Amino acid sequence: MLEELKKQVCEANRQLPKLGLVVFTWGNVSGIDRGRGLFVIKPSGVPYEELKPEDMVVVDLKGNKVEGRLNPSSDTPTHCELYNGFPSIGGIVHTHSRWATAWAQAGRSIPAYGTTHADYFYGGVPCTRAMTDAEIEGDYEKETGRVIVETFRNRNPEEIPAVLVKSHGPFTWGGDCGEAVYHAKVLEEVAMMAWHTEAIAREPAGEMQRALLDKHFLRKHGANAYYGQNRTGKGR
Amino acid sequence: MLEELKKQVCEANRQLPKLGLVVFTWGNVSGIDRGRGLFVIKPSGVPYEELKPEDMVVVDLKGNKVEGRLNPSSDTPTHCELYNGFPSIGGIVHTHSRWATAWAQAGRSIPAYGTTHADYFYGGVPCTRAMTDAEIEGDYEKETGRVIVETFRNRNPEEIPAVLVKSHGPFTWGGDCGEAVYHAKVLEEVAMMAWHTEAIAREPAGEMQRALLDKHFLRKHGANAYYGQNRTGKGR
Amino acid sequence: MLEELKKQVCEANRQLPKLGLVVFTWGNVSGIDRGRGLFVIKPSGVPYEELKPEDMVVVDLKGNKVEGRLNPSSDTPTHCELYNGFPSIGGIVHTHSRWATAWAQAGRSIPAYGTTHADYFYGGVPCTRAMTDAEIEGDYEKETGRVIVETFRNRNPEEIPAVLVKSHGPFTWGGDCGEAVYHAKVLEEVAMMAWHTEAIAREPAGEMQRALLDKHFLRKHGANAYYGQNRTGKGR
Amino acid sequence: MLEELKKQVCEANRQLPKLGLVVFTWGNVSGIDRGRGLFVIKPSGVPYEELKPEDMVVVDLKGNKVEGRLNPSSDTPTHCELYNGFPSIGGIVHTHSRWATAWAQAGRSIPAYGTTHADYFYGGVPCTRAMTDAEIEGDYEKETGRVIVETFRNRNPEEIPAVLVKSHGPFTWGGDCGEAVYHAKVLEEVAMMAWHTEAIAREPAGEMQRALLDKHFLRKHGANAYYGQNRTGKGR
Repeated sequence: MLEELKKQVCEANRQLPKLGLVVFTWGNVSGIDRGRGLFVIKPSGVPYEELKPEDMVVVDLKGNKVEGRLNPSSDTPTHCELYNGFPSIGGIVHTHSRWATAWAQAGRSIPAYGTTHADYFYGGVPCTRAMTDAEIEGDYEKETGRVIVETFRNRNPEEIPAVLVKSHGPFTWGGDCGEAVYHAKVLEEVAMMAWHTEAIAREPAGEMQRALLDKHFLRKHGANAYYGQNRTGKGR
Repeated sequence: MLEELKKQVCEANRQLPKLGLVVFTWGNVSGIDRGRGLFVIKPSGVPYEELKPEDMVVVDLKGNKVEGRLNPSSDTPTHCELYNGFPSIGGIVHTHSRWATAWAQAGRSIPAYGTTHADYFYGGVPCTRAMTDAEIEGDYEKETGRVIVETFRNRNPEEIPAVLVKSHGPFTWGGDCGEAVYHAKVLEEVAMMAWHTEAIAREPAGEMQRALLDKHFLRKHGANAYYGQNRTGKGR
Repeated sequence: MLEELKKQVCEANRQLPKLGLVVFTWGNVSGIDRGRGLFVIKPSGVPYEELKPEDMVVVDLKGNKVEGRLNPSSDTPTHCELYNGFPSIGGIVHTHSRWATAWAQAGRSIPAYGTTHADYFYGGVPCTRAMTDAEIEGDYEKETGRVIVETFRNRNPEEIPAVLVKSHGPFTWGGDCGEAVYHAKVLEEVAMMAWHTEAIAREPAGEMQRALLDKHFLRKHGANAYYGQNRTGKGR
Repeated sequence: MLEELKKQVCEANRQLPKLGLVVFTWGNVSGIDRGRGLFVIKPSGVPYEELKPEDMVVVDLKGNKVEGRLNPSSDTPTHCELYNGFPSIGGIVHTHSRWATAWAQAGRSIPAYGTTHADYFYGGVPCTRAMTDAEIEGDYEKETGRVIVETFRNRNPEEIPAVLVKSHGPFTWGGDCGEAVYHAKVLEEVAMMAWHTEAIAREPAGEMQRALLDKHFLRKHGANAYYGQNRTGKGR
């Protein structure tokens, strides 16, 4: 069942430590088969180097386990909520990567300070509001997903494929689970550089010019994208 | 004598440089056999890559060497004091890891700024008071243990398995020596992120909400823990 | 065609991730054959580890592709402008390396704070002015090159083989593509150290003494250079 | 000639990149045979991975090359001055390591903030005064050594085996070239942690207690040292 997707999701999970985004088991990746309405996610608490495609867990869009010997990631309800709230996305990553988490803990959005940011995120990467005690004490992981979706009410998740959950850490997504991992690494680089930009600026650092943000995002992701070898949009 | 424990303690010591927690010989791990009232500890000044199980030193809870050709770590009396003061712990780690040591040198406790912290530490990681000159000039390593135990008078060492010794560095512990090493790495990550959280916060960073601290600590370590594959408590 | 140069440029590109200067495909190197008026550059969006000499793209000094199956780097017009504006340079590198980019995003030149800087850069490494909206919306990559050349109106690109493009990142150059990569790494180290120098200085950090800047730059690059094994100038 | 010493000095030089203390050729190690009054030093500008014992250069205490096909390090006159000024030292290291250099560029001594420092340096690591223009324009490398020796007029180079040269970088030394490299790494760790200690301290960070400095330095290096396996002093 979903053997190809399991392989991709397994491999995407194994990329996390290689890219320096996690220690121990502090992250998880999922990928969805939109046709069947099922997604595949990492089992909870299993080390990345031991992960095999057959360990992956299959879950439906109501959050029920459909297949798998192991328990799915404890963050599964958050993934589920995001797949329901953002119908165009194909993969999701959650980590506690150092630099993005520092911004999340400070409760701050990451401003767009330069073209590295603009190449992937069409504006600042938002930080969610604090969750209420009721949300935390209730169906916490599901509510986490809801507060992310709420944060994107006036944003396009395809244009800004990342969020910081306040006092917690980053979630990123993409067209598939590989792109979601790619965005998790981009976010970490951007978070590191933005942190150091602010501290070195002679006066409070201002966001980059709108024209430059447009140029860099659209030359990679717009209708007339001209970055990469495939020039019909969304290049890398 | 205690061959299995020696293997575990040896391996736990060898993890320290692999996890980026030590340079040279700047750290030590011990593990205890509570039934026999004996603990096993790294020999002093031996490089990790050369350590073998038979190099480990066996010490009793009065701090006397019971077996071993080599001198035990010069921090042995501190370990001994902690085993006596915290009857439920099974392993101890001391390092001079960079980020935790920076907090210790600043004489500051690490506030709970986010869920990475709350997943392992049920509140701020305390920094000890300065030791008195008499304590330093007396039985220094033993007094170091005493001031740690004193710091936990109103804290539960199982809920906060780490401490910063002022002007010195971190000690961590756990159910066994492997978990103590795990906590040493967690502490280093948390220390790094807390450092950067404060510097980027728009106003003095506040601690995370109590409800969120409870949720994250208890979903991993409470009676109804649901993280990991073993859902009867203390998952990883 | 230009087989030897293609090999050099390919190898220089492959050095970028090894030196920690890029993630994914975030950088590009070119090298020029001044006799023929042609330069060789990395293809756009191809991972470094897959690059082969035959993938390199040959471009003339008007920016037209002369040979190659693949699209050249989207930054090709910037390289072209620099080769035209700085007739003595033989290779160019562009990256989004972390520390140099933080300075670029802050819109600040890197002051000469020490001899590591002075060994390679004869004065501060300048940051360009912000580009106008018209420049960004027009022939953007070419205009990026123009604003760099403008920044060097009163500077000697041989004495300061690096620039920061505001809100973007660094470009470096050198006598050949290998030296340009070398300078990209030097710039990153210098950027990291300058960042930390400012933050630790008791009062606003001042630039190094003129005499020391002269001494270090000229003992390596002056007419009477005496660093390295080849003491007739420009040693390493 | 001095074949054993050449091997040791070669190996000590090769340790520099492995310990993360240098990039390219930015550092050099020497070691002395006090009986013969000759020291062995790295050749200038040769990459560490290519260094062989027979490439080492032999120099006398007047700074004259006695043996070797290659030019000695351009910093040779500084090493020479230190061997003459500090008769008890057996090896010297110079690097541009990142954290120590940041302090040197800020013109600041590194205060003793904790026991990691006290384990190796018996008080703050001093930064030299700025050199005069006459010193820089004169016999620069020799004057660099002189200003270091001047800095130690009221300090014991055995108790504080390191210095920061203002606007330049660190020199360290030791009983032999291996110990000098060891101290170079210790200094880098200490510099990193001190930098972060200051920034996180609630009020200006104060130096550690004198009693603690004494305890840690003397338990490793005093007459009654009890660290390591060899308890007759100077353990590691």
